[in-house]
Amino acid sequence: MDRPDINGREAILKIHTQKIKLAADVDLKVIAQKTPGFSGADLANAVNEAALLAVRKKKTTVGMVELDEAVDRIIGGLEKKNRVINQKEKKIVAYHEVGHAMMAALTPGAEPVHKISIIPRRLAALGYTQQRPTEDRYLMSHEELLSKIDVLLGGRVAEKIMFNSVTTGAGNDLMRATDIARAIVSEYGMGETLGLATYPKQRNPVFLQTQQAFSGGREYSDETAAKLDNEIKSILDEREQHVSEMLLTHKENMIQVAELLLKKEVLYEEDFLKLLNQ
Amino acid sequence: MDRPDINGREAILKIHTQKIKLAADVDLKVIAQKTPGFSGADLANAVNEAALLAVRKKKTTVGMVELDEAVDRIIGGLEKKNRVINQKEKKIVAYHEVGHAMMAALTPGAEPVHKISIIPRRLAALGYTQQRPTEDRYLMSHEELLSKIDVLLGGRVAEKIMFNSVTTGAGNDLMRATDIARAIVSEYGMGETLGLATYPKQRNPVFLQTQQAFSGGREYSDETAAKLDNEIKSILDEREQHVSEMLLTHKENMIQVAELLLKKEVLYEEDFLKLLNQ
Amino acid sequence: MDRPDINGREAILKIHTQKIKLAADVDLKVIAQKTPGFSGADLANAVNEAALLAVRKKKTTVGMVELDEAVDRIIGGLEKKNRVINQKEKKIVAYHEVGHAMMAALTPGAEPVHKISIIPRRLAALGYTQQRPTEDRYLMSHEELLSKIDVLLGGRVAEKIMFNSVTTGAGNDLMRATDIARAIVSEYGMGETLGLATYPKQRNPVFLQTQQAFSGGREYSDETAAKLDNEIKSILDEREQHVSEMLLTHKENMIQVAELLLKKEVLYEEDFLKLLNQ
Amino acid sequence: MDRPDINGREAILKIHTQKIKLAADVDLKVIAQKTPGFSGADLANAVNEAALLAVRKKKTTVGMVELDEAVDRIIGGLEKKNRVINQKEKKIVAYHEVGHAMMAALTPGAEPVHKISIIPRRLAALGYTQQRPTEDRYLMSHEELLSKIDVLLGGRVAEKIMFNSVTTGAGNDLMRATDIARAIVSEYGMGETLGLATYPKQRNPVFLQTQQAFSGGREYSDETAAKLDNEIKSILDEREQHVSEMLLTHKENMIQVAELLLKKEVLYEEDFLKLLNQ
Amino acid sequence: MDRPDINGREAILKIHTQKIKLAADVDLKVIAQKTPGFSGADLANAVNEAALLAVRKKKTTVGMVELDEAVDRIIGGLEKKNRVINQKEKKIVAYHEVGHAMMAALTPGAEPVHKISIIPRRLAALGYTQQRPTEDRYLMSHEELLSKIDVLLGGRVAEKIMFNSVTTGAGNDLMRATDIARAIVSEYGMGETLGLATYPKQRNPVFLQTQQAFSGGREYSDETAAKLDNEIKSILDEREQHVSEMLLTHKENMIQVAELLLKKEVLYEEDFLKLLNQ
Amino acid sequence: MDRPDINGREAILKIHTQKIKLAADVDLKVIAQKTPGFSGADLANAVNEAALLAVRKKKTTVGMVELDEAVDRIIGGLEKKNRVINQKEKKIVAYHEVGHAMMAALTPGAEPVHKISIIPRRLAALGYTQQRPTEDRYLMSHEELLSKIDVLLGGRVAEKIMFNSVTTGAGNDLMRATDIARAIVSEYGMGETLGLATYPKQRNPVFLQTQQAFSGGREYSDETAAKLDNEIKSILDEREQHVSEMLLTHKENMIQVAELLLKKEVLYEEDFLKLLNQ
Repeated sequence: MDRPDINGREAILKIHTQKIKLAADVDLKVIAQKTPGFSGADLANAVNEAALLAVRKKKTTVGMVELDEAVDRIIGGLEKKNRVINQKEKKIVAYHEVGHAMMAALTPGAEPVHKISIIPRRLAALGYTQQRPTEDRYLMSHEELLSKIDVLLGGRVAEKIMFNSVTTGAGNDLMRATDIARAIVSEYGMGETLGLATYPKQRNPVFLQTQQAFSGGREYSDETAAKLDNEIKSILDEREQHVSEMLLTHKENMIQVAELLLKKEVLYEEDFLKLLNQ
Repeated sequence: MDRPDINGREAILKIHTQKIKLAADVDLKVIAQKTPGFSGADLANAVNEAALLAVRKKKTTVGMVELDEAVDRIIGGLEKKNRVINQKEKKIVAYHEVGHAMMAALTPGAEPVHKISIIPRRLAALGYTQQRPTEDRYLMSHEELLSKIDVLLGGRVAEKIMFNSVTTGAGNDLMRATDIARAIVSEYGMGETLGLATYPKQRNPVFLQTQQAFSGGREYSDETAAKLDNEIKSILDEREQHVSEMLLTHKENMIQVAELLLKKEVLYEEDFLKLLNQ
Repeated sequence: MDRPDINGREAILKIHTQKIKLAADVDLKVIAQKTPGFSGADLANAVNEAALLAVRKKKTTVGMVELDEAVDRIIGGLEKKNRVINQKEKKIVAYHEVGHAMMAALTPGAEPVHKISIIPRRLAALGYTQQRPTEDRYLMSHEELLSKIDVLLGGRVAEKIMFNSVTTGAGNDLMRATDIARAIVSEYGMGETLGLATYPKQRNPVFLQTQQAFSGGREYSDETAAKLDNEIKSILDEREQHVSEMLLTHKENMIQVAELLLKKEVLYEEDFLKLLNQ
Repeated sequence: MDRPDINGREAILKIHTQKIKLAADVDLKVIAQKTPGFSGADLANAVNEAALLAVRKKKTTVGMVELDEAVDRIIGGLEKKNRVINQKEKKIVAYHEVGHAMMAALTPGAEPVHKISIIPRRLAALGYTQQRPTEDRYLMSHEELLSKIDVLLGGRVAEKIMFNSVTTGAGNDLMRATDIARAIVSEYGMGETLGLATYPKQRNPVFLQTQQAFSGGREYSDETAAKLDNEIKSILDEREQHVSEMLLTHKENMIQVAELLLKKEVLYEEDFLKLLNQ
Repeated sequence: MDRPDINGREAILKIHTQKIKLAADVDLKVIAQKTPGFSGADLANAVNEAALLAVRKKKTTVGMVELDEAVDRIIGGLEKKNRVINQKEKKIVAYHEVGHAMMAALTPGAEPVHKISIIPRRLAALGYTQQRPTEDRYLMSHEELLSKIDVLLGGRVAEKIMFNSVTTGAGNDLMRATDIARAIVSEYGMGETLGLATYPKQRNPVFLQTQQAFSGGREYSDETAAKLDNEIKSILDEREQHVSEMLLTHKENMIQVAELLLKKEVLYEEDFLKLLNQ
Repeated sequence: MDRPDINGREAILKIHTQKIKLAADVDLKVIAQKTPGFSGADLANAVNEAALLAVRKKKTTVGMVELDEAVDRIIGGLEKKNRVINQKEKKIVAYHEVGHAMMAALTPGAEPVHKISIIPRRLAALGYTQQRPTEDRYLMSHEELLSKIDVLLGGRVAEKIMFNSVTTGAGNDLMRATDIARAIVSEYGMGETLGLATYPKQRNPVFLQTQQAFSGGREYSDETAAKLDNEIKSILDEREQHVSEMLLTHKENMIQVAELLLKKEVLYEEDFLKLLNQ
């Protein structure tokens, strides 16, 4: 079964909220935009969770705040406001997340920022930046793939600019950026030296118990592997350069956003855009 | 058991339609042409599906339209007319599919286009171009393998020409084109530098649960692997060049077809040929 | 248990035909020659099949025709006279098979041609040329290995000469020719640059369920692998050259045989030799 | 479930010590600092163990000494005071551990030394140096990764300085230092020649019985592998040089600490700092 | 349990023949020499088999002939005197076996030839030469390893000298000779460029069902692999040269032995030596 | 559970010999020195075995001789005085073992020789030299690793010096020496060109049935592998040179020891030292 698309999700949300009194501010289309990849069951779950939250807060209607929090809980686990993070790390995390958010805001066509948070969720997620897809998307252009890399590198570059030092916090971002750069060159024929041919990956996914697949080593030559490595490195070098220039140009803005984030711990789209456009 | 050939399929269709009132326009030979690879059960299924469709439409006979739709349903799943695709993606998809179709029409000996559709079926298939084999084929000449690559590259090249940008939508086309180019050089001795010798693939198919095969790494040298890579790249470069020239020459035609497709969402052979030959 | 040799097979055939009325033309020695690799059970099977065929044809004796067909059925599955092949492919297949047969006839010491057929058996076998071993053989000289390659390449070269184009139909022939060329250099010490040392294969056979063998990668150096590749290519280049010269010299003969084959669909040794020696 | 953080551990310790009479010197915050990675059950265990130790010593309260020993038992197994080590090895071990401790003390931002011991625990652990994290940490800067390497190399360099000879005792330290250096270059984009791209490891972890993962060989080229090797070697060469300079500068201090350690077998933070700051 | 040594085998044979009437010519020491590797059960088996053979021949005593044949049956399966081999192959086989035997006779210190036979045993064994160890051996010198290669290459070189052509019959000899040459260089430190270091094999033995071992690829460099290849090739080239010279020098003798072997099918040590020393 | 150390073993031996009458010459400390790696059960076993031996010899006390033999039996299986070895091999074995023993005696800090024997135990062990650790050791210096290589190479070099020929008998010694040389360079950072980094092994240990680990090929570059090969070869070349010089210098002594060993078959520490120091 395909997961529901944006229209499907809105329709499902309507069904599940029929017997619930919604606050005036609730816009189910916004919730549908925030939940790509959710199954019908996930959406039902979120609505129930939101209703429970409203009950706990002794509210008579379920508002946008509850729906938003319910969705967040399902995405990233329960918030742990009481986790201890030292002030220096908190600052690094804030600038890292704002780096992502700035690049999302500064890149034409990138998905708008929905929320920036430095309330840690799990050990591995000290903060996060949530983008809001404006519509379901099925194709990705070369430019869009590069802008995805830009957003991923934003966190790291912001750390570098502000603290002249980098941390292990960017590890996962770099792995994902490398994967996109590799796909550009080896899957989508968008590279400069390797033409339209595709070069299959060596890494196998984790296997089911009884079904095993092995690649018996890579098919292409070491020379081709070196060209792949060089193109991937080039792409990332170039994007890092671009992201650096962008964030330096908007450094003041970035500081304002980060300082507000440190104070409030969570920033929503509206507040964020206000600061950017002032 | 071998799947039935074109004659076999027509015979099977005759049997399954014996108790069904067929409309005057029904030509079972055409359905047989459209269904290479169908088993007897698949054909029976298609006939039943067509009958049900006719019932739903309150028709007293089963027509070509129903049979055609039934075959399509079996091939690609139920149509989802209500999936939301943004207008820009729709346009890209249309030109991509028309690129395939144009190359099929412009390449002597290629299978004629039966249908072009931009009604998305599954997430992965935003549109499709269906070619109609004129007869069962068992051999493929060097020229035919190249023309298969041309048709595959047509989608990508059309995107490039029209939007000066390429998308991830061509990923699967490129993988299949690379596989054909590799087979030309490494299985069929049709390359230029590697002679008649064959060079076995490293990639293993997905295995049955209890039967495992491993290749212990490639047998041929890295030098030979580099020659393979270069020949594959050469073939694809040359075909891309050829496809570019063809589609640029017929750019006006391509635009007419694509614009009509965007309006009608589905084009059949007849309409398509009319536009090409005007 | 060893499979029976030619004498053993004749003896077994004698036993199984004791209670069957054989036609005067039956020569069990010929059947024994045609069935290397058959087990006792296979031979019994063939005799039964022949008897059934005779019954169906309402004959009172089992003749050479029935025995021959029965053996063919066991080797290649039931004939499918009604499969549709287009005329162009039929012509390619005919010349391809005659190419094999001509090389078998023109190579001193090669096994004589027993039968050439373009009645397709399975999808993968559009035609076939059957050679008749004149005796059981246990050793193969360097020259004989090369002549085996010549016969394998005959099909492909004939296509090239007649149609100036090559097809995928030679894929399996090329794989087998490559395997023989590799064995010449890497198993039998008959190459020119690698001496008497042997170089084990990397490809593992398909495994039994519970018994697995892995080679941990090749033992010899990349330099040695390149030498192997070069020698294999050299051997195949040279044999292709030789086969080309032979078939061009006998091109008229080849056309006569192929045209007769296209008319009759099956040629037996006698007819074939008559045409060659006219 | 996440393991409890420092606050969580202190809270858990408070609960488990509610029914136990604690001595006046007990500071549960210190115990919480010493036990990162402990589960709730581990902490309960330690408290019980401490109570038992107090009973054996016929004390009426559980003191810091008992809690400390109980934690040590859980970390490293029971102490074996009676294991025989020859005097020369004892001396090597002492200087090795003091080398670790000195580097921890001399590196700004490194976690302070809690305890140095040359009482062997298991065959593989002739001595150990325990650092005390001052707070839970989630990010690691480039400088901190290097200082972790420095502390690991301290043992080896101390041996070299004092005995002009090195032993196998540093094997595990070197493996861990290499892993950190590799991560700097291949996971965190902190190297000098390989940019921000990541290069996945080849070594697989030990697998669960029924779930298997295979990498089919490395994806990056041999040239890139050589660059990785060179950067890793460079990092370790440079750190060794730095550690050498530091320990030579503080050689007198190091000798004082080591001689005291040889006499007392265990040194605590307080004694250690006193010697350093005299 | 260790297999019995030569003394042990003689003792076991004595026990098993106690209740059997032996002919005057029986020398159990000779049988013990012929049966290295036999277990006690194998020896008992051979004695029983010999007794049965005597009974079938209606002899009242068990003679050397029966014991010899019984041992042969156990080693190589039942003789098949009636297998058909053509005369040319028979001649090749005869010279091949005599090539082995001549080298065994001409190499000081090689084990003496016990029997040469061209009565085929199994498909794979058209003939064989049996050497008789004069005593149990535990060590092998460099010279002895080379002389083992000489005996293995004798068959191939004899074919070359007599027929100026080589066959696939030497395949197994070459594989074993290559293995010995590889062991000389990579296991026993007897090579010229690779010193005393050992280089482990990549090929894994066939595995038991449930116990698997994998080497994750070779540890040594490609440069070292090339050196290994070169040394192995050198050794085999040199030995081939030496064997060629030896057999050319004794060509007349070789022809006499081979012709007698073709007439008698089996030659024993005595006849063989008579011809050599005439 | 850790195996007992030297003190532990002595204590365990005291317990198990409490009810046994020991001869005056028994020194349990010496037995404890001879049995590193023995478990408590192994020690109990040895004591029982010694008691049985004394009973068989009708002695009223258990002496050092019985304890020593019992330990030997457990280490190496029952002695087989009656195995036949030819005189030449016996001589080679004697000089090989004396080569090991001489290097052990001539290397400062090496463990003293306890016993040299040329009474074969198993097929694979024609002789052996037993060293006596003077104490339990936990660390190994670079010099000690090299002296371990020296003792391993002693056997091979002695063969070379005395017979100007080498045998397969050194195969296992060379493999172990190579492993130590590799560890020096790749695990302990004691090499000259590869710094402190570690380079993990490719060879996997034999696996348990259900737990599998695979390395997906080596992580380091071919260039690094070549450096490893060169360093390993260098170390072994240099040690061979050193061992050669040592044994040539003490050649007369070596001959005296070997001749006595050939006469007596077993030499104990005392006799050996007497000859060396005369």
